[in-house]
This record gives sequence, C-alpha cells and structure tokens, in this order.
Amino acid sequence: MNLLLLQSETIQNNVATIVGRQLEHIIQVQRLTKGDILRVGEINGDIGLGTITCLNNTSATLEIALTAKAPSPIPLTIVLALPRPKMLRRILQTIAAMGIKQLHLVNSNRVEKSFWQSPLLTSEAINEQLILGLEQSRDTLLPSVHLHKLFKPFVEDELPSIVGNSTAIVAHPMSEQRCPIDCQAASTLAIGPEGGFIPFEIEKLVQVGFDPVHLGSRILRVENAVPALISRLYPA
Amino acid sequence: MNLLLLQSETIQNNVATIVGRQLEHIIQVQRLTKGDILRVGEINGDIGLGTITCLNNTSATLEIALTAKAPSPIPLTIVLALPRPKMLRRILQTIAAMGIKQLHLVNSNRVEKSFWQSPLLTSEAINEQLILGLEQSRDTLLPSVHLHKLFKPFVEDELPSIVGNSTAIVAHPMSEQRCPIDCQAASTLAIGPEGGFIPFEIEKLVQVGFDPVHLGSRILRVENAVPALISRLYPA
Repeated sequence: MNLLLLQSETIQNNVATIVGRQLEHIIQVQRLTKGDILRVGEINGDIGLGTITCLNNTSATLEIALTAKAPSPIPLTIVLALPRPKMLRRILQTIAAMGIKQLHLVNSNRVEKSFWQSPLLTSEAINEQLILGLEQSRDTLLPSVHLHKLFKPFVEDELPSIVGNSTAIVAHPMSEQRCPIDCQAASTLAIGPEGGFIPFEIEKLVQVGFDPVHLGSRILRVENAVPALISRLYPA
Repeated sequence: MNLLLLQSETIQNNVATIVGRQLEHIIQVQRLTKGDILRVGEINGDIGLGTITCLNNTSATLEIALTAKAPSPIPLTIVLALPRPKMLRRILQTIAAMGIKQLHLVNSNRVEKSFWQSPLLTSEAINEQLILGLEQSRDTLLPSVHLHKLFKPFVEDELPSIVGNSTAIVAHPMSEQRCPIDCQAASTLAIGPEGGFIPFEIEKLVQVGFDPVHLGSRILRVENAVPALISRLYPA
C-alpha cells in the first residue's frame, strides 16, 4: 500500500477515521504510530498527506491535507472475457493500478459458465480489489467495471457506442497485423479468454470495427497479457 | 499448456515417453486419447507435432516430428531483487513465457533474508517454473537463472561483464528520465524489490553504467512491472 485510499464518508473537516483492513495495515505492516505521516487520497478525489493524531486497536484518526491531483487516466477501455475467479482478483488490481478506468467483463464461448457465479463479481468485492490496485499505484479514481453475460447482444447493441471514435483492436494470435505501440489517442482493446475468442466471436468484433492484432508468436496468460498490452499501447 | 515440452532424455528415435504432471495434463485437462495430435517441443531444441500412439494411466508414448525453430530470444538480461517466494514462482513463469533467457536474482536491502531460504530456489524448482512458462508460450529455450546473495560484490565484480555493450537501465520511480520504448539492441534491466532499491544501491548501479528510468507516476507491483517493462522495451 503506497497510498491510503479513504472513503469520502469517513472524512469530515479534514479529519479521517480509519478502521478494519487499513487500520491493520498501518499497525502491523507499516508499524506506524501517533505523529507519523503517510500518503493518503480520497476515492475519486485528490491526493496528499495524513498525520496520525490518534491510534488504538479499534481505530485511527488522521488529519489530512489533500493538495495534489490523481494521475491522468489511461484513455483505454478494456473488454475482457471473464477470467477464472482467482485470476480475476489479480486482474482487477492490475487494471486499477495501471490507470484503466473502464473495464467490460464479457462472456465468451471459452468462459466456463461457473465463473459467472463467483462471489467476486458483487460490486463490493470488485471495488475491494480495485481499491487495492489504486492504493498500490497511488491513484484515487475508481474504475467502472461492467458485466455482460451475453456476448452477441453486447457486441451488437452496446459495444459500438462504447467504442465511439476510439481505435478498436482485439488481441488475436492468428492475426498478421502487429499490435500498435505508443498510441496517443483513445482506444478500445478486446482480450479473449485462455484459449482465445472463437472465430465467430472474432468475426462479430470485426463487424463492429475491431482490428485483430497479434503480440508475437508467444502466447501469454491473461495476467501477463493485460499489463504487457497496456504498457505497449500507453507507455507511461 | 500450449506446447508439451520434452526432456531430451525421454526422446529416442523420435518417440517420446510422457509421465507425471504432463501425462496428467494430457489426460485430465486436455482429455486427449490415442491418435490425437498435439504441439510438442524439445527443451533447448525444436518445435513440432506429436501423435499419441499409446496411452494408459502410467505413461503415454508419442511419435514426434520436430520441424520448426523456437521463437527468437528477447535480447534483454534482467537483474531482479529476489521477490518473495509466492511471487517468484509467477515471475519465473513470466520471464520464461516472455522470451527472457538471462535472469540474475540479487539481494538488496529491502529483500527479506528469509526469502533466500525458499525451497523454490533449488535449480529443480526453478526449472519446473521455467518449463511451465515455456509450455504456456510455445518456446523451448530454457532461461539461465543465476543467484547472487551479496549485492555489492555482484554489482562491482560481476555485473560490468554481464552488461558488456548492452544498454543498462534501472527502473527507479524517482528518476526524471523516461524508460525507453521499442529498443532494438541488447539491454540489461535492473528491477528493485517492493519499496525499491535504496539510494546506495542505485548509486552503485549508476557507478557501473546504469541509467535510472521511471515508468510514470504509478508504482507497479513487481509481478506487473516485469511484463510491462519487457513489453515496452521489446514489443513483439
């Protein structure tokens, strides 16, 4: 945790109250005590410093001064075939940590039906992972995560307006076109499940304007493909 | 597993014998049977196809034809502060999957001493993870992993000849120089532990020719920094 991310409700007159996981982290991992200063931010707000004015086993009080803006969002919308729950947790942290603000989790032929039953898909559980990612990377702007259980209607009816004027690409090992590097403008990137999108799905994406692009001959796991793609498209 | 990676000792006259983890994977995950064809490769050798000629609960026999070369190595040597064991496992798979062939795991002030006791650091355990990475990405060339328990003598005495004529950079959030994109030539990249290299360590690296470079204002976990850095330095 490189920044303590505060819920707006816990802040009043520049004083924040910390409980639960964050309190535990301050005491047990960071080993902070009264008078110590740490980096803080307000969810969807600014970044600054907090001074611990009171600390016990049930809560901590911080006097905060938020003076800086959060880093600029990456202008990339990701459409991702729903990964298996264990991987989903990590990927939510990754996309939040890397500055992505729009994530669409979609169904696909190779997504196991059971993945949609995961308790990780409640908005509370999703936000928990996103906040861990933001705290890691010192950001405050919470990404929006949207779930789409049906591939075809999502692609046909919703995806065109999500793409808008952005460059739309789909990572596809069979493609002969190389994935772009260092895009400046906004783009929308679709990433398939382990095993890839099936031909019908690629066809549907192409019909709404997606260009299939490859990442070389090596096939990456989704957990590596996501940071690798973000980093080559928008090297910070 | 996108390629079954065979030990040379298990191949005789283009017939390979499969046991253990790989046999289990063929039967339980891929659900293959006699007559099925799968992608195979020989460790440090070529890539091709294998036909299952015999399959039972204790072993499988494959007739193989290796006709293609492994993908070209990425000309990047990574010097990485030893990560915690749980993360090490994943990072070994990642570097193998992404085409890195030289990895130096080094000590650093912020590396916990206990990490050096991990059973994951035996050469058998390291190779196990590397092979999983190669099988994921369809490569055969096993990376070399070197352990250096003392930072200073390693940097002073060994690192200069490891770097040779390559471009040497160290990922360092405090730097004002941006990390390069799309290098063509060989480079050597040093990556610190969680919390970063301490100033003394950066100074030592600078003394032997390393340029500190940043990756933007967001601080990434090592497990994301590694694929993000490889991908922006050598986009496939």
